[in-house]
Amino acid sequence: MKKYTSVKDVANVEELVNEALHLKQNPYKYKHLGENKTLGLIFLNPSLRTRLSTQKAALNLGMNVMVMNLDKEGWALETQEGAIMNGTTVEHIKEAAGVMGAYCDILGIRSFPKLQNRDEDYNEELLQQFIEYSGIPIVSLESATRHPLQSLADLVTITENKATGKKPKVVLTWAPHVKAIPQCVANSFAEWMGQANVELVVTHPEGYELAEEFTENAIVTTNQDEALQNADFVYVKNWSSYNDYGKVLTEGAGWMMTDNKLALTNNAKVMHCLPVRRNVELNDEILDGQNSLVLQQANNRTYAAQAVLKRMLEAL
Amino acid sequence: MKKYTSVKDVANVEELVNEALHLKQNPYKYKHLGENKTLGLIFLNPSLRTRLSTQKAALNLGMNVMVMNLDKEGWALETQEGAIMNGTTVEHIKEAAGVMGAYCDILGIRSFPKLQNRDEDYNEELLQQFIEYSGIPIVSLESATRHPLQSLADLVTITENKATGKKPKVVLTWAPHVKAIPQCVANSFAEWMGQANVELVVTHPEGYELAEEFTENAIVTTNQDEALQNADFVYVKNWSSYNDYGKVLTEGAGWMMTDNKLALTNNAKVMHCLPVRRNVELNDEILDGQNSLVLQQANNRTYAAQAVLKRMLEAL
Amino acid sequence: MKKYTSVKDVANVEELVNEALHLKQNPYKYKHLGENKTLGLIFLNPSLRTRLSTQKAALNLGMNVMVMNLDKEGWALETQEGAIMNGTTVEHIKEAAGVMGAYCDILGIRSFPKLQNRDEDYNEELLQQFIEYSGIPIVSLESATRHPLQSLADLVTITENKATGKKPKVVLTWAPHVKAIPQCVANSFAEWMGQANVELVVTHPEGYELAEEFTENAIVTTNQDEALQNADFVYVKNWSSYNDYGKVLTEGAGWMMTDNKLALTNNAKVMHCLPVRRNVELNDEILDGQNSLVLQQANNRTYAAQAVLKRMLEAL
Repeated sequence: MKKYTSVKDVANVEELVNEALHLKQNPYKYKHLGENKTLGLIFLNPSLRTRLSTQKAALNLGMNVMVMNLDKEGWALETQEGAIMNGTTVEHIKEAAGVMGAYCDILGIRSFPKLQNRDEDYNEELLQQFIEYSGIPIVSLESATRHPLQSLADLVTITENKATGKKPKVVLTWAPHVKAIPQCVANSFAEWMGQANVELVVTHPEGYELAEEFTENAIVTTNQDEALQNADFVYVKNWSSYNDYGKVLTEGAGWMMTDNKLALTNNAKVMHCLPVRRNVELNDEILDGQNSLVLQQANNRTYAAQAVLKRMLEAL
Repeated sequence: MKKYTSVKDVANVEELVNEALHLKQNPYKYKHLGENKTLGLIFLNPSLRTRLSTQKAALNLGMNVMVMNLDKEGWALETQEGAIMNGTTVEHIKEAAGVMGAYCDILGIRSFPKLQNRDEDYNEELLQQFIEYSGIPIVSLESATRHPLQSLADLVTITENKATGKKPKVVLTWAPHVKAIPQCVANSFAEWMGQANVELVVTHPEGYELAEEFTENAIVTTNQDEALQNADFVYVKNWSSYNDYGKVLTEGAGWMMTDNKLALTNNAKVMHCLPVRRNVELNDEILDGQNSLVLQQANNRTYAAQAVLKRMLEAL
Repeated sequence: MKKYTSVKDVANVEELVNEALHLKQNPYKYKHLGENKTLGLIFLNPSLRTRLSTQKAALNLGMNVMVMNLDKEGWALETQEGAIMNGTTVEHIKEAAGVMGAYCDILGIRSFPKLQNRDEDYNEELLQQFIEYSGIPIVSLESATRHPLQSLADLVTITENKATGKKPKVVLTWAPHVKAIPQCVANSFAEWMGQANVELVVTHPEGYELAEEFTENAIVTTNQDEALQNADFVYVKNWSSYNDYGKVLTEGAGWMMTDNKLALTNNAKVMHCLPVRRNVELNDEILDGQNSLVLQQANNRTYAAQAVLKRMLEAL
């Protein structure tokens, strides 16, 4: 595996899920693979789960890890071809990526969208240029459009919890938030579920349609109650508008996931990528109750990352 | 050992001191104990000694270490039960602690008091919630009320330097500072000395009484000169008022520890947890002289932390 | 080797270059040397290459690494002897260096000049005090006056690329920039080239003379075109004035290194320490072309650091 930026980079999704489940049972079995290999983790934004779980995954594989908070410990990067760099950007990504590629065997990079210009964000310029100029395998630690390590962990979690012999109904439901949030987790979850053996329903208020490429295999509805009927898994997540890009169109009163709504489902397991705004997106009763999978999801982040890194190490 | 937050968590103080002294002689003897074990260090405040010495201790034991500057690399945590999180806190400690507990085998956490509300600070809400929700052993790296790794290192240092066959007289003396400082180092030192085989005298200007629970086994006086008579060890430290909580009541002219005052003692060794304000708390002559133990104390931080981590690893 | 702050700390420059080249071929051969040894890296300023390459070098040697962003994770240091510390500095370097010396076996430190007071900067107070008070070997990760790990990597790169049997002509040329930059990279490069088997020419606009001690073995000229004639290597770098200390005297129109100027040389290889301001210091055509060595230089930073650390480990 040379890059891991979306489900499209995965030849066989089911095999990768099984690899992660195998590693969860045998976390230290492949420690020899990472000997003398270095993972660089580049953060342009805050991170808790991704930072720690990806480090842990690399350590489980015997790798060295170097963490770089590029926004704080480094400097602003230029991404524009041909730029006359007489402004605030200190280094062009061509050099930065090339240099980090020289010091590391695999690079992970996290970069949030600015939510100001849709084309700019959805072009994934930073991620694409790291792929082009670093010369080594690149793992997305969350980009403007996707969060593929989260989605793999989500699918691992669903696999662990689904009833045998039944195709589960999975509902991705929009939830309120206090600020404008990227679409990447929702995009990515829908994209991965579209490649898995599940029935996917996406529900959100009008105006919150995701880009069509992500929901091709989903039923999309603005009727949350109807969507939740007979759901086996409910994935709760806020996102800002894709069409009216980056905008918060509604406070979404009534869209918070509560126990009343859970009663509409097939005793569904409830998922969230975290961090979650309690009693805004999801109420306490659900998060503190038996149906919540949020900590299991977070724990599975380690094995999702480990499965991806293992594939990359094997292909070096 | 499941938690290390105060001397009360230690079954046998003398044994733990001896363990630290043994590790100082044999730092790498137990490197197998930490294999495939991960220490997470969470900082909500700056740290130099604690950060480095605890890392070093874990490395000596063969552990992996993941450091998280939660105040800078993460986000603000909510600690209130039932909060509607529509404000500035991004994640509830229930999730944050649970997630970090999933990635680590032992967690260390540093969190300073705000010095605004005494009950809030002395409730140690953050530390208690990490203990409750992380599901793994927790080491305090300094909390609102105590600094137990410092106190253990202090007692190790006194043990190394005391005359044989004599119960040493240990004086904890208040010293001036330029800003309001928590009581935790003073509380903790008094609490530990109360469990050790020493005679403890605490001296400070009026109004700087520590909470009684910490000084039960001490003689307390506002007469510094009298306190220093025949002292074998003098521990110098500033703290703000406990009764008039967080306030600086006096500039404390005359309370700086100087060689003139040292002359009142039994050629006492002088201690400070560092960082120290030179020529405000303590003068240069003492710090640069033969009686200073401050660097030895700092060095012993490694073995204090290593003794605690070793106990925790053995009990995993 | 007890300190590495300038070429004067190196007994035999050619041997050290050969050591680095040997390590580039055998990066993991000396992994036993660093067992149970800890490198502390202290940053008072941002760093990308130095941060990552020095970590990588230490990991290749089997060392543990502890990174400390002292400007962000720690606090302001006092360097003045006898200071009454009632201001903003929280810890004296005597204590800070002594403590870090207790936790580490080797320390690296990066500290930029303030460019306000030449004597203060050129006294290298911080670096000198770390040498004096830490008690362990110190590596400069770039100081006010020099950047010796960069210069060693530069000389390694020249050695790899020079034609056999000919003493190469090396030109250090000033280039424009948008802000005031220290002289350290230029000083250091000139100082190292002065000890190598090369012909060194330094060229810059009037007023940008470096301190004489660095250019004793160089031809210095303000005629860039003349300097570039028959050059085999061109090192491009901006610096602010040494005489009119820290000032930007000219925008330097016409001093940017371009392909037209490259045509004056002996098809010279072009070098820069990075980060580089594209189309201000150097144009895109050169940086993206066959003559650029900038990524090779950056890669050689690892082996330069590894050679120095290996010498220090052997002398512990």
